[in-house]
Amino acid sequence: MMQKVNSMDDQNLSCVMAIFGATGDLTFKKLMPALYNLEKSKLLPEQFAVVCIGRRDKTNAGYQNDVYENIQKNIKQKIDEKVWGSFSKRVSYQRQDFTEDDGYPSLKKVLDQKGGNMLFYLSVSPHYFEPIIYKLKKYDLANSENGWRRVVIEKPFGSDLETAQILNDRLTKVFPEKDIYRIDHYLGKEMLQNLLVLRFANSFFEPVWNAKYIDSIQISSCEKDGVGTRGAYYEKSGALKDMIQNHLLQLLTLTAMEPPESFDERHIRKKKTAVLKKLAACRDEMKLVRGQYGAGKIDGENVAGYRQEERVDENSNVETFAALKLFIDNERWKGVPIYIRTGKRLKNTMTEVVIEFKNLPQTKFFSDSENISPNLLVIKIQPEEGMEFKFNTKKPGSVNTIVPVKMNFCQNCQTGTNSPEAYERLLYDVIRGDATLFTRWEEVKYSWIFADNIQKLWQKQFVQFPNYEAGTSGPKEAEELLESDNRKWWCEGGEL
Amino acid sequence: MMQKVNSMDDQNLSCVMAIFGATGDLTFKKLMPALYNLEKSKLLPEQFAVVCIGRRDKTNAGYQNDVYENIQKNIKQKIDEKVWGSFSKRVSYQRQDFTEDDGYPSLKKVLDQKGGNMLFYLSVSPHYFEPIIYKLKKYDLANSENGWRRVVIEKPFGSDLETAQILNDRLTKVFPEKDIYRIDHYLGKEMLQNLLVLRFANSFFEPVWNAKYIDSIQISSCEKDGVGTRGAYYEKSGALKDMIQNHLLQLLTLTAMEPPESFDERHIRKKKTAVLKKLAACRDEMKLVRGQYGAGKIDGENVAGYRQEERVDENSNVETFAALKLFIDNERWKGVPIYIRTGKRLKNTMTEVVIEFKNLPQTKFFSDSENISPNLLVIKIQPEEGMEFKFNTKKPGSVNTIVPVKMNFCQNCQTGTNSPEAYERLLYDVIRGDATLFTRWEEVKYSWIFADNIQKLWQKQFVQFPNYEAGTSGPKEAEELLESDNRKWWCEGGEL
Repeated sequence: MMQKVNSMDDQNLSCVMAIFGATGDLTFKKLMPALYNLEKSKLLPEQFAVVCIGRRDKTNAGYQNDVYENIQKNIKQKIDEKVWGSFSKRVSYQRQDFTEDDGYPSLKKVLDQKGGNMLFYLSVSPHYFEPIIYKLKKYDLANSENGWRRVVIEKPFGSDLETAQILNDRLTKVFPEKDIYRIDHYLGKEMLQNLLVLRFANSFFEPVWNAKYIDSIQISSCEKDGVGTRGAYYEKSGALKDMIQNHLLQLLTLTAMEPPESFDERHIRKKKTAVLKKLAACRDEMKLVRGQYGAGKIDGENVAGYRQEERVDENSNVETFAALKLFIDNERWKGVPIYIRTGKRLKNTMTEVVIEFKNLPQTKFFSDSENISPNLLVIKIQPEEGMEFKFNTKKPGSVNTIVPVKMNFCQNCQTGTNSPEAYERLLYDVIRGDATLFTRWEEVKYSWIFADNIQKLWQKQFVQFPNYEAGTSGPKEAEELLESDNRKWWCEGGEL
Repeated sequence: MMQKVNSMDDQNLSCVMAIFGATGDLTFKKLMPALYNLEKSKLLPEQFAVVCIGRRDKTNAGYQNDVYENIQKNIKQKIDEKVWGSFSKRVSYQRQDFTEDDGYPSLKKVLDQKGGNMLFYLSVSPHYFEPIIYKLKKYDLANSENGWRRVVIEKPFGSDLETAQILNDRLTKVFPEKDIYRIDHYLGKEMLQNLLVLRFANSFFEPVWNAKYIDSIQISSCEKDGVGTRGAYYEKSGALKDMIQNHLLQLLTLTAMEPPESFDERHIRKKKTAVLKKLAACRDEMKLVRGQYGAGKIDGENVAGYRQEERVDENSNVETFAALKLFIDNERWKGVPIYIRTGKRLKNTMTEVVIEFKNLPQTKFFSDSENISPNLLVIKIQPEEGMEFKFNTKKPGSVNTIVPVKMNFCQNCQTGTNSPEAYERLLYDVIRGDATLFTRWEEVKYSWIFADNIQKLWQKQFVQFPNYEAGTSGPKEAEELLESDNRKWWCEGGEL
């Protein structure tokens, strides 16, 4: 579990969290289980209350009952009744239509009673972001004179640079940038947090972490799942906006960033943003592949094509798969292609970064040098969390036959290790005021410039959809993207 | 098992091997089992015979029977009778005192009948090396007009530079250097053969393999065993000559050598010798520790001190433990201390090379930077064969607590993998004429210069023996040697 740190100082000892969207999936499946787990680990401030705001007519007791059931469904152990006893006392329900003025005066009264510091969590559809923010201002709830005010915004933050910029302008009229916590839950995953430790707390990696030694980088995030019930959302998003603009670019910045001057939030962000700026600038060298799944088989079961999914246009041209080849135009990464791939209804579910190293000039002296595999370092994000290193060794008993072997470190395979859910860490951080694992405006901005460029390029190219069968590894063009560079995708579900 | 290579060309297809010392331990325990295994793997030339020369009166059948029993005792499986059937036909016994002229004319007749190429294996005490060599010359057995002549010499090759030089001068009057195969059986061990592959067939290691990134190197070879029945030999040798001058310096040269221009024997040897020359030159910076075991406990059993062992002087000042700190005075290793340690009757049995890396300057930014462990790369020679990499990771669930973890590659832990014995590889190589895994004169010469320097320094210092108890990790001075540098020995039997 998370370790207690000493930064919950007196000033922060009280906090009330207002969740807009009390009965939504995110609140029930992620936020409440995460808060319960923080309670269990004694990581919540002593004076901490959660006011959950929803339209439905519910009593406190009735709502708490829903919360109990949802926590039980979403945590791995049986609920600890003692922990639940203290946690449930913190939770109350507030019936209110957040677009209407009616409820806000009484909300303000409730929140003011609970404590001086306020955390507003917008667990709602993006079109409610602005109305809620305005009401908070109107009813003096954003006023930080008597304690801090922080607002947590879920993705998507805009749907392109223009809409994101408008949203941001309006948001920052109410809350200063430092108090806006834009969630990218990938940043709460253990191995993303671990990336900077791996890179900078180990002398072994940094010296070879550059174009002199690295041949190429592959970032893959593959899913067996289709869009499920999220068709309406996905029709407006697609793989590019759902995965690449946010999660995979974050993964890339942490993999590729320069060493920060220190590990405080400001320095880390500066170096991450520098990567995004360079990405945004290199659009001419990019190569793009997109795909959409047709019907196929997953684990032996027939599954529908994307156009046949619920709430999806039967002629939809939205991509459910994207593969990119891109470059980062700086000294460290000059000439190193970065391949990014994500898709739904693929053969396997896994997110991994693979660093492929160049072969040494010396290898040509080995008698079977043409068979020497490159060294690979694989950073496994999910479902397995860990690292794998593939290198060459002499085949035991042979004169000089070289064979590749693997060393593996699996973080979540060890018995008793149970990585906390991303939301646990993220909620803990926002309560403490640590924004390191949240995306700030500059990052969002450059990510959208990058994504908008791709969108524009795609508009010029017609691709016949569907172009890959569910349960395969995506459209053949994604394989060809690497084959034409004499490379191949290394991971097919974690097996090199 | 070993792979067949295509270098057993026509010219080499016949070979007769004459073993001097037919009934010695080495012949029975190592050479015969190795030859049997080569037969089993079909790696012996078709026309291959073994003539075993000993003083005792034995018939061929009687000797073959002894060989059979000894092979059975020393291989892991049950003898394959079919393999034995073909192997035993190759083996004959020749009764002869090798210091007397009598037997040589008939030996020559026997060998001439068996084939054109001759391999003389001196599996005898060092004082027989010269007499046998002279007789071989006298009876025209060293004459390579009708096929190659090779001679294999067991250690020790001399007892200091002077005696080694004399032996070598006499030897090279009979056999040219290229035909002299000086055995260091450590070079036949899988992981020593593997060292050059690990270093040069992997781009990951070479860039950090230098003083910029490496803090220090530790080479340990520890044994639980005492001197056993070898007291008489050990009294003339000690740890320095028994282990360091040969095996551990070979391990060091392979770890520290520059990349060779190619992987042929001549280029590898040149780079290995360059390391030994530099070692020999740095004697002033060396620090030395020696020890001798007293009585103690191994695995709960009482064991005697060295001075109480069979055929050991009761006032012996021979060292059974040695630890050195030394430097290699070249660009790559400038300022990198190399710690070498070997001893008998220690807590554990293991031979390992540990490369300790420097911490990155960035690590100071981590909040618990003082707890960051250095990266370690461990090359395990025996009993486990493999590699281990110790690095730092974020403790799962913690905010930024850094913990060391390990990745491990165990070559001989995999089921079905059975590394061949060193002698199998070495005999295979000498039959093929590959001297890469044998020590040539230049290496022996500089190893002796190094060992003689140490011996001279030791003569000036009196140490009260015994100074460590059997079953411990050696004299406390060996710990202090590292403690005074703010370091510690990493391995205690393979566990970091």
